[in-house]
Amino acid sequence: MNPTIQSVLVLGAGAVGGFYGARLAQIGLQVSFVCRSNFEAIATKGLQIRSYQGDFSITPEQVVQDTKDYQGKPDLLVIATKVVPGNDLTDQIAPLVHPGLTILLIQNGIEVEAPIAEAFPAVPLLSAIAFVGVTRTAPGQIHHQLRGDLEIGSFGPGQFDSALKRVLTAFESTGLKIRGSQDIVKSRWVKLLWNAAFNPLSVLGQADTQRILELPGSEAQIRAIMGEVMALAEAAGKPLDPQLAEKNIAATYKMPPYKTSMLVDFEAHRPLETEAILGKPIKIAHRLGIAVPRLELLEALLHLLADQKRG
Amino acid sequence: MNPTIQSVLVLGAGAVGGFYGARLAQIGLQVSFVCRSNFEAIATKGLQIRSYQGDFSITPEQVVQDTKDYQGKPDLLVIATKVVPGNDLTDQIAPLVHPGLTILLIQNGIEVEAPIAEAFPAVPLLSAIAFVGVTRTAPGQIHHQLRGDLEIGSFGPGQFDSALKRVLTAFESTGLKIRGSQDIVKSRWVKLLWNAAFNPLSVLGQADTQRILELPGSEAQIRAIMGEVMALAEAAGKPLDPQLAEKNIAATYKMPPYKTSMLVDFEAHRPLETEAILGKPIKIAHRLGIAVPRLELLEALLHLLADQKRG
Repeated sequence: MNPTIQSVLVLGAGAVGGFYGARLAQIGLQVSFVCRSNFEAIATKGLQIRSYQGDFSITPEQVVQDTKDYQGKPDLLVIATKVVPGNDLTDQIAPLVHPGLTILLIQNGIEVEAPIAEAFPAVPLLSAIAFVGVTRTAPGQIHHQLRGDLEIGSFGPGQFDSALKRVLTAFESTGLKIRGSQDIVKSRWVKLLWNAAFNPLSVLGQADTQRILELPGSEAQIRAIMGEVMALAEAAGKPLDPQLAEKNIAATYKMPPYKTSMLVDFEAHRPLETEAILGKPIKIAHRLGIAVPRLELLEALLHLLADQKRG
Repeated sequence: MNPTIQSVLVLGAGAVGGFYGARLAQIGLQVSFVCRSNFEAIATKGLQIRSYQGDFSITPEQVVQDTKDYQGKPDLLVIATKVVPGNDLTDQIAPLVHPGLTILLIQNGIEVEAPIAEAFPAVPLLSAIAFVGVTRTAPGQIHHQLRGDLEIGSFGPGQFDSALKRVLTAFESTGLKIRGSQDIVKSRWVKLLWNAAFNPLSVLGQADTQRILELPGSEAQIRAIMGEVMALAEAAGKPLDPQLAEKNIAATYKMPPYKTSMLVDFEAHRPLETEAILGKPIKIAHRLGIAVPRLELLEALLHLLADQKRG
């Protein structure tokens, strides 16, 4: 294994993958991208980041349309694709597997790691949660509005400590706030608390975070939805800080009006991460016998609306 | 009092008021309308009904913009306005009150009668529920797609039997299926069961009844929402037929694809009957200590979406 991360391949050059890949390229790593809808723009013009921390552009090492076309053996594969049905990752990962590979997932939702861990048990698998407000404004163009911190942990705590250390070191060099997580599955529940409430309401109410909080009735629903996620996390063995819902709401009040990633996807007619954010938690709830009426209703409404938008 | 109904004034010449008023005019009653947005069209061209039972047109006796402008004393005042905030009826009713007046409400929702009963305790107050699929396709133009039956009862059972008998007789002459109700408040709960489920889902999912039922997840939610209304009706002293939810779903499967009145209002940028269909039941639930998480979430989502549409 390499003592430090040199070459990085980012799968999914949307807002999140593009942003973190660009930050790694900015500090001199050899960063390449696998992209589909963005391919033409990024291959010819690279990535432009408009950021509240300072604008910058990068030219990727390689830009490919398929992992099979990547030349070389990446030290790190960053997976930042949307978690949507039909996006099977194992086929795309297989050509990249070599003894020096580490995989880092930066994705939303719950239980996103298991299929990869099962398919490639020998490959160190890290999992990260991004606390960041980034939007793709055009192919290859990303607007970074908020935060940027990452919480990174080993999937299977303690299992891949040296890989985790190397990846933490690489990301810390970007100047972003990076935290190691001893329990990334629990961290996912922490993030889900916000996502499960604000993402669906933003789409169904066609509203940014400020509008949602302005209407007293919807703030009460945010609290009630978070209550369901809290109860579910506890039943799943990951009890959260009882104050976390209130802290989340207070923090959201302090944010500038923000369009959730799900609302951005919806307005761009892209598939929604409904399964990662609601579907998987609901399946866990059914397994554990926890009532989640609001999560179920939101899931059904999002499916209905997405079906109508396609139809 | 007149032994039979001769003169009818319809307040609200939308789809429901226009349709029933036109059917009464068709059998020779002197039917007048109070209208706002439809005034110009109806005053000059009357009402055109395109109906699965046969198209017809009528010329109203009088068309006025305010109840104060109506000439004469109506035997029957039919109130078919939408139940939306700011639509205070008592001011509009006051100029019409005389010893021969009967009031008939044809409106959606729960607890719509009380303000009128309190303001005019001496006036016979009847309350009706329409089981009808009608849509206003343009000012003065109504498309009648489905059914047409009315269930009419006295508000305060047994209180206004002679008025009820006269009104039933008038409506029966139209050929529509008319039922007298011994307990119109209970009948309102029966109708609410369908409305509270299908109206909000149709707006939030932008879907007609068939699309809603096609997605297995949303059919399950229809059932769950109806379960909340059933529990609430029972707690409010009006237990419903336990099979009613399944009967409603089965009947809706047999209907042609139907846009709910709330979806039609939403698409026309008109105010929604959220308060009558969800707000009042939720207040009753809070009073009685019944959990209605789905009704509450739907109400908040509709307020959010309506607020966004206005904003």
